[in-house]
Amino acid sequence: MSEGGSQPSAKLWGGRFSRPTDALVDELNASIGFDQRFARHDIAGSIAHARMLAKQGIISADDQAEIERGLKQVWREIQAGTHEFRQSDEDIHLSVEGRLREIIGAPAGRLHTGRSRNDQVATDFRMWCREAVLMLAAGVTDAINALLEIGDRYPDAILPGYTHLQRAQPVLLRHHMLAYGEMLLRDLDRLRDVYRRTNQSPLGAGALAGVTYPIDREMTAQLLGFDDVCANSLDAVSDRDFVIDTLPACSQISMHLSRLAEELVIWSTPEFGFIELDDAFATGSSIMPQKKNPDVAELIRGKTGRVYGHLIAMLTVNKGLPLSYNKDLQEDKEGVFDTVDTLGMILRVLPPMLQSTTFRPEPMEQAAGGGFALATDIADYLVKQGLPFREAHEVVGAVVGYCAAEGKDFPALSVDEWARFSPILAEGRPPLTPRDAIEARNVQGGTGDQVVKEARQAFDARFETFQEWIAEKTQQTAVLDALLETE
Amino acid sequence: MSEGGSQPSAKLWGGRFSRPTDALVDELNASIGFDQRFARHDIAGSIAHARMLAKQGIISADDQAEIERGLKQVWREIQAGTHEFRQSDEDIHLSVEGRLREIIGAPAGRLHTGRSRNDQVATDFRMWCREAVLMLAAGVTDAINALLEIGDRYPDAILPGYTHLQRAQPVLLRHHMLAYGEMLLRDLDRLRDVYRRTNQSPLGAGALAGVTYPIDREMTAQLLGFDDVCANSLDAVSDRDFVIDTLPACSQISMHLSRLAEELVIWSTPEFGFIELDDAFATGSSIMPQKKNPDVAELIRGKTGRVYGHLIAMLTVNKGLPLSYNKDLQEDKEGVFDTVDTLGMILRVLPPMLQSTTFRPEPMEQAAGGGFALATDIADYLVKQGLPFREAHEVVGAVVGYCAAEGKDFPALSVDEWARFSPILAEGRPPLTPRDAIEARNVQGGTGDQVVKEARQAFDARFETFQEWIAEKTQQTAVLDALLETE
Amino acid sequence: MSEGGSQPSAKLWGGRFSRPTDALVDELNASIGFDQRFARHDIAGSIAHARMLAKQGIISADDQAEIERGLKQVWREIQAGTHEFRQSDEDIHLSVEGRLREIIGAPAGRLHTGRSRNDQVATDFRMWCREAVLMLAAGVTDAINALLEIGDRYPDAILPGYTHLQRAQPVLLRHHMLAYGEMLLRDLDRLRDVYRRTNQSPLGAGALAGVTYPIDREMTAQLLGFDDVCANSLDAVSDRDFVIDTLPACSQISMHLSRLAEELVIWSTPEFGFIELDDAFATGSSIMPQKKNPDVAELIRGKTGRVYGHLIAMLTVNKGLPLSYNKDLQEDKEGVFDTVDTLGMILRVLPPMLQSTTFRPEPMEQAAGGGFALATDIADYLVKQGLPFREAHEVVGAVVGYCAAEGKDFPALSVDEWARFSPILAEGRPPLTPRDAIEARNVQGGTGDQVVKEARQAFDARFETFQEWIAEKTQQTAVLDALLETE
Amino acid sequence: MSEGGSQPSAKLWGGRFSRPTDALVDELNASIGFDQRFARHDIAGSIAHARMLAKQGIISADDQAEIERGLKQVWREIQAGTHEFRQSDEDIHLSVEGRLREIIGAPAGRLHTGRSRNDQVATDFRMWCREAVLMLAAGVTDAINALLEIGDRYPDAILPGYTHLQRAQPVLLRHHMLAYGEMLLRDLDRLRDVYRRTNQSPLGAGALAGVTYPIDREMTAQLLGFDDVCANSLDAVSDRDFVIDTLPACSQISMHLSRLAEELVIWSTPEFGFIELDDAFATGSSIMPQKKNPDVAELIRGKTGRVYGHLIAMLTVNKGLPLSYNKDLQEDKEGVFDTVDTLGMILRVLPPMLQSTTFRPEPMEQAAGGGFALATDIADYLVKQGLPFREAHEVVGAVVGYCAAEGKDFPALSVDEWARFSPILAEGRPPLTPRDAIEARNVQGGTGDQVVKEARQAFDARFETFQEWIAEKTQQTAVLDALLETE
Repeated sequence: MSEGGSQPSAKLWGGRFSRPTDALVDELNASIGFDQRFARHDIAGSIAHARMLAKQGIISADDQAEIERGLKQVWREIQAGTHEFRQSDEDIHLSVEGRLREIIGAPAGRLHTGRSRNDQVATDFRMWCREAVLMLAAGVTDAINALLEIGDRYPDAILPGYTHLQRAQPVLLRHHMLAYGEMLLRDLDRLRDVYRRTNQSPLGAGALAGVTYPIDREMTAQLLGFDDVCANSLDAVSDRDFVIDTLPACSQISMHLSRLAEELVIWSTPEFGFIELDDAFATGSSIMPQKKNPDVAELIRGKTGRVYGHLIAMLTVNKGLPLSYNKDLQEDKEGVFDTVDTLGMILRVLPPMLQSTTFRPEPMEQAAGGGFALATDIADYLVKQGLPFREAHEVVGAVVGYCAAEGKDFPALSVDEWARFSPILAEGRPPLTPRDAIEARNVQGGTGDQVVKEARQAFDARFETFQEWIAEKTQQTAVLDALLETE
Repeated sequence: MSEGGSQPSAKLWGGRFSRPTDALVDELNASIGFDQRFARHDIAGSIAHARMLAKQGIISADDQAEIERGLKQVWREIQAGTHEFRQSDEDIHLSVEGRLREIIGAPAGRLHTGRSRNDQVATDFRMWCREAVLMLAAGVTDAINALLEIGDRYPDAILPGYTHLQRAQPVLLRHHMLAYGEMLLRDLDRLRDVYRRTNQSPLGAGALAGVTYPIDREMTAQLLGFDDVCANSLDAVSDRDFVIDTLPACSQISMHLSRLAEELVIWSTPEFGFIELDDAFATGSSIMPQKKNPDVAELIRGKTGRVYGHLIAMLTVNKGLPLSYNKDLQEDKEGVFDTVDTLGMILRVLPPMLQSTTFRPEPMEQAAGGGFALATDIADYLVKQGLPFREAHEVVGAVVGYCAAEGKDFPALSVDEWARFSPILAEGRPPLTPRDAIEARNVQGGTGDQVVKEARQAFDARFETFQEWIAEKTQQTAVLDALLETE
Repeated sequence: MSEGGSQPSAKLWGGRFSRPTDALVDELNASIGFDQRFARHDIAGSIAHARMLAKQGIISADDQAEIERGLKQVWREIQAGTHEFRQSDEDIHLSVEGRLREIIGAPAGRLHTGRSRNDQVATDFRMWCREAVLMLAAGVTDAINALLEIGDRYPDAILPGYTHLQRAQPVLLRHHMLAYGEMLLRDLDRLRDVYRRTNQSPLGAGALAGVTYPIDREMTAQLLGFDDVCANSLDAVSDRDFVIDTLPACSQISMHLSRLAEELVIWSTPEFGFIELDDAFATGSSIMPQKKNPDVAELIRGKTGRVYGHLIAMLTVNKGLPLSYNKDLQEDKEGVFDTVDTLGMILRVLPPMLQSTTFRPEPMEQAAGGGFALATDIADYLVKQGLPFREAHEVVGAVVGYCAAEGKDFPALSVDEWARFSPILAEGRPPLTPRDAIEARNVQGGTGDQVVKEARQAFDARFETFQEWIAEKTQQTAVLDALLETE
Repeated sequence: MSEGGSQPSAKLWGGRFSRPTDALVDELNASIGFDQRFARHDIAGSIAHARMLAKQGIISADDQAEIERGLKQVWREIQAGTHEFRQSDEDIHLSVEGRLREIIGAPAGRLHTGRSRNDQVATDFRMWCREAVLMLAAGVTDAINALLEIGDRYPDAILPGYTHLQRAQPVLLRHHMLAYGEMLLRDLDRLRDVYRRTNQSPLGAGALAGVTYPIDREMTAQLLGFDDVCANSLDAVSDRDFVIDTLPACSQISMHLSRLAEELVIWSTPEFGFIELDDAFATGSSIMPQKKNPDVAELIRGKTGRVYGHLIAMLTVNKGLPLSYNKDLQEDKEGVFDTVDTLGMILRVLPPMLQSTTFRPEPMEQAAGGGFALATDIADYLVKQGLPFREAHEVVGAVVGYCAAEGKDFPALSVDEWARFSPILAEGRPPLTPRDAIEARNVQGGTGDQVVKEARQAFDARFETFQEWIAEKTQQTAVLDALLETE
């Protein structure tokens, strides 16, 4: 996008220029290679704009009818793949308007009355972004469902909860999966915030200062499914906060999924052996016949880099730019396009991968019972028999040290051995199974069986409000389709 | 913060260890150098935790009373500057607990029942962050007021609106300032979202899996002014989304202010001459006697870099971390501390700088009338006399080309000269003053005098809801002071 | 690239798999969409590999001849545009090998003996990168020449040197341009360093541990124009330092050009008026007939963002990856491709833009004489008449204060007015022209006419060594063409 | 640093100002809080500058002697901790000069002749950076030695080489450690490049345009241990490439160490069990008595984030700054200080941690023989018996599939079972031990015992040139100490 067009033959803005633009400049300036994604939004926006111009008496009803008819034809041609996007058209706006002129002739020239490409591109871009946000939100929803499904599939599975990648305390697999559910629920919350700030109409801001025609901004905003109009014309044409809002939200989604991916990679090693990926979601090696690699998880983890990169790129572009529109802002699109594509792809492949993955409750539970992961529970047991916690911790620490030296695990200790460390341990039976540890943590938000069930119900309720929001907004933004429909 | 303490003499977790920690490791691990900022939150958090433990019958009322008395004394000592923060105490939690033990003896050991440093630090940090967010929001509010005040001070001032840093169309200075107002209002909206997601209590998540005592998480959450409790223990101890949420919000504030700063730097050049900084907000050179430099604006612009840097640092730290707590997360604090300090400082210095800056309406308006910034209006004038816009654009472009070649500006053209380009121009008088251009744009969101007044009123209404939010939340978070008060 | 292939029908690694790969996984995994850039390097690499295998007796001379014949045909087909790149081929290596098999049949299967796709892709990528580095170096050379040419075109032009964007001291335009020359010379130095570290052959590292055949790594390295072989197989397949080396070098080039671009934007405002862009390197507005925008400079400035972004993306990808190859590394290509394309484009358009730009010595020199830019020289004059510098600074500061209040510039002061501030000023004539200031700075590295001439000569000598290096290395890397040539 | 001072009482540049600087501005501007690190360089620089001024006859020999005497006293006071750094002194330069004036009176005023704080700070900073680079290089050297020592300690240890964190092929631990050695050797190479570009003297560039006194820049450069003088004054005061060069080099060191750290974390899990950290380099948990956490490795990994952050911060600061010095550049120091401190600390703690870590050859070798890591070797065995590789791969893949289904590993297969897949396997004995696989890879750069020994020798030779470079440059930069010495 640019204020300036660049047909080598006859620029729309050629009046004050005595020489044609250099071919390299045309190439550098052209955005048609990537902004053709806005075709649908641009045409719908123009239809709405034309209807408003007619209602306000700025153009005639006949011209409006012609314009709308022509625009719908352009849209059909684009859908059919017969429209030609040419670099000489510079951007999607001129590409559409140029074709419109070929179809309907003179009235095409009246479409651009009372608007500029500066507000036009901002309008298109916001409509694109809000749909991208909804698409991602739907993808996150799918990912959440896949996580919940794992919990439902293995309701009793226990694995070691880790801190520092060392076994810490046993947890339910369901509880572990819900932890990711919480992260993704916050991501949905962020996307909802982004959507709210994005869905404002800049149309009518003109080049930067508003326009000199009696336009009705509320009308176009409503026709295009916007919630409100942007309040200040200078801001409206130079603001890209809606893009920058999208990128940190995507960065966090990507970061959360990179954590899950890291666990999948580790869990699928033979050393851990907690999961087995389905053959359909792993790849082999053309050299090493035994290899079964978790490529998908690795790519999910690795692609976090490009999402972060696009965020920092966009922030850098905006730093220190004076008002209002500057050409630097042409750099606003490709990064967010790639971000949305990348994350969209990941969110499509992750759910079926999770659904097809086999979890192995036996080695998981065995690990949860080993590596002294029950140590805290034994200490708590001593406390409940009257020992102060600091002393109990010391006793169990000494038992662990003894075991490490002897190469034994807790269950292998004889009663005599236990007794050496505390008389209490000579008498009763400390909790020695992962399930004991699980049951002891029936506290709100903890891993106890009962509270995890309750947590799941509360989760579902919160989750549902986001699903309803997605449904509602998806319907609201579908007004574009109505505008584009040929009756 | 760490799960492990590190007093060289007697570690709390020494049971299974046979050798003391290396001194370099102690140094690397210690966070007391920066997490002492949490002293107030940590002590208030402990008071609330102890009250809950007593209410639940986990500790005795007497112990609770002793603990609370002791903690309040520690707080008084810290406020008085008599508390010694030692590296051997490793972190703020052990520093406070250690001093508490010195004051009240044995009962101090019961305070840590049913919690871990993993949930404790997350609780402290969230309380710190929510206050930081409110402080920044108040600072943004001050900045907005300073911008509005400029508009009120120069209600009629006109400057050229720029695109590509080339004069585009005249705008009211008030309108220009409101554009920044819009950016900062969005920033307030973002901070409000961040606050909402931050103000959840992780207390009770324990080390990672919940605790084995019948604690009441709702009670501590309420005592500490939280809106809710974190729903999942694994997530609660390993989640730093509230930090990552804060950093993009700060990055955008910083970016918006860097744009304003760039304009102040440019406007204060002799070439532009639009503003004169007050001597109190400029500095000179020890070599060049004439220099009067806009250091403050430059530093505001430059400090954007460090804010972006802290954002990318925090995102990088979290990438690919398996659940749950990992020591990498100790890297979560310094960056956000520096970000909040930096932005807090900027938001303190910006308002008085703006208030003391003299704007020069004469050169601004002269510039707005020169450089052919009225060209669009002359074209629109031709359109209103019946010429199609594309033709009108061509005519005015030719006039501009003629003027550029002759070294003249529009007002210097004779009637004959105008007439050469279009018969219409021979007859009437096209709009030739910046004020004409302003008045022609009385469209919603535009720069027309009347609509800017209306925009201001609408702005004030929206602004007020944020001010009310800040007041309400400031009151809510003040519960900490009540907890710390010695009656 | 991946260790694993993915033809849905019959994967090369299908032995241990019982189900075909999911279509989404195939899509996610495929790199053929972007790594087809390596076609030339891949085929040349295979020709060299086959020659070595034959020399070592690992394959027969007949097979080698067939393989080489076939590979050259594939290359001709790719050049002719008749080769079909299919997603089902996954990557460039399989795409070439697949077509080779169609052409020559069975012997194609012997080509991959003693190598893996892990070392193959690293080899291709390094060859691509070294050429990219040379291309960028040549582009930087062009930019330097354009900067030097400006100095030659305006040998006497003086402009104000700025600090804080405030006029500081007069400088020669030649001197100003040489400042950018120095930056770009450092960039060439960096590129030379990058080249040196890049041009090492990983071929022969196999999948990760070396191969079990008696290959000759030195021979393939020499045939392919490498300076050396990578010393460690694990490192060779997992190292992407050569990419990360390229990105900061590109970031600095981009940053340097962004500084120049910022100056071009500022200088082309009517307020500064120092330069006039050629019509061929500026664009207009379809709305505002007067606009002539410095789009190219703005895009150069803006595109800095994406270069920084790619750098941070690549650093993020590599963080925390265990040895050796991980699929995350597939993310290593697109960012550097885009970086090189972006910078290559900028370096093509910048020189003709600079060459066609008109500088305006009159307003520049006028500005250099105004705004009290001679203040330091007057103070130095007083010092040379015996006044201590601190006192002299005070005196001239007072004169500036007086002038500012009276709205006068130095030359407008009467002898009486000067005399008021110091008796010395009543007697002699302080330097009052920019040229005086220039001539006073004939110190090494300064802006004096004579020293700038000398600086230029010294610059040329250093510059020449880089040009020679580019020529030499360009010839060295041209061995690929010889390998691909059909006799 | 700034061109302007800020003593509230009497600014050095107060001449043209009518009001004192606002206290907030003073606070924002002051750099004394962090640039006091330059004390040593600043004083040495001043001593050299004064000697040159005297030699050139610009100041008298007596004044020079007084100045040098006074400066040495200031340095002794700073070393003794009796010098007071005050915010009102703004920066290290004024702090030193102010104290000098107190000590020697009037002659102090002659020290600043022929220089500006702009070239002074650049000189100090470059001297600081070159020492930082050498310190880091020495630290990297220590890390390399620690890696080599592990190889020497376990000359026969074999572990599985991994790709995708799946067992791929056996490798020698020595070979694995040398892979990190290669990375760090490249880092030394980068540091050497950075040093070369850093060690240029900007002194004499003045404020921006050179100075009006007949100074001898070569002399001060030589006295201060610089290799050359900066060729252009505008560039010399505004260039911070030496900082930006340092940060990517540090980012790569940090990234390499983060990879090693990730492996240490994974290897120290009970699931892998390849290493046991020494108690002195691990920490425990105050809650969980069994925990032994690899905090150091986690912090090394995590601190990568802040290093990346500082890099992006510095790049952002410089983007789009016009020439020459701008106040934004005050943001150039803290990030690189923190980077060097962080990395310096890591490089101190890593070597003793590695030296004290116990590797467990038995589980490592057991893992190397399991998980079908010998599959490639069995396939190669079949090839050597005449089978085409693709067929051999298929056969072994089928064996792996069979084993996976039966829950067996290769060695557990009976002759009959082997025979089922290929008649060749019924006859001979395929290689079935990790050592077989090692020995088969005696190819340059591979993991074979003999070639690893040769690789080590070649490594040592290359390593030695870097150690010599460090020694030589350390001596060269020690000239500062000579300047500061009181005879």
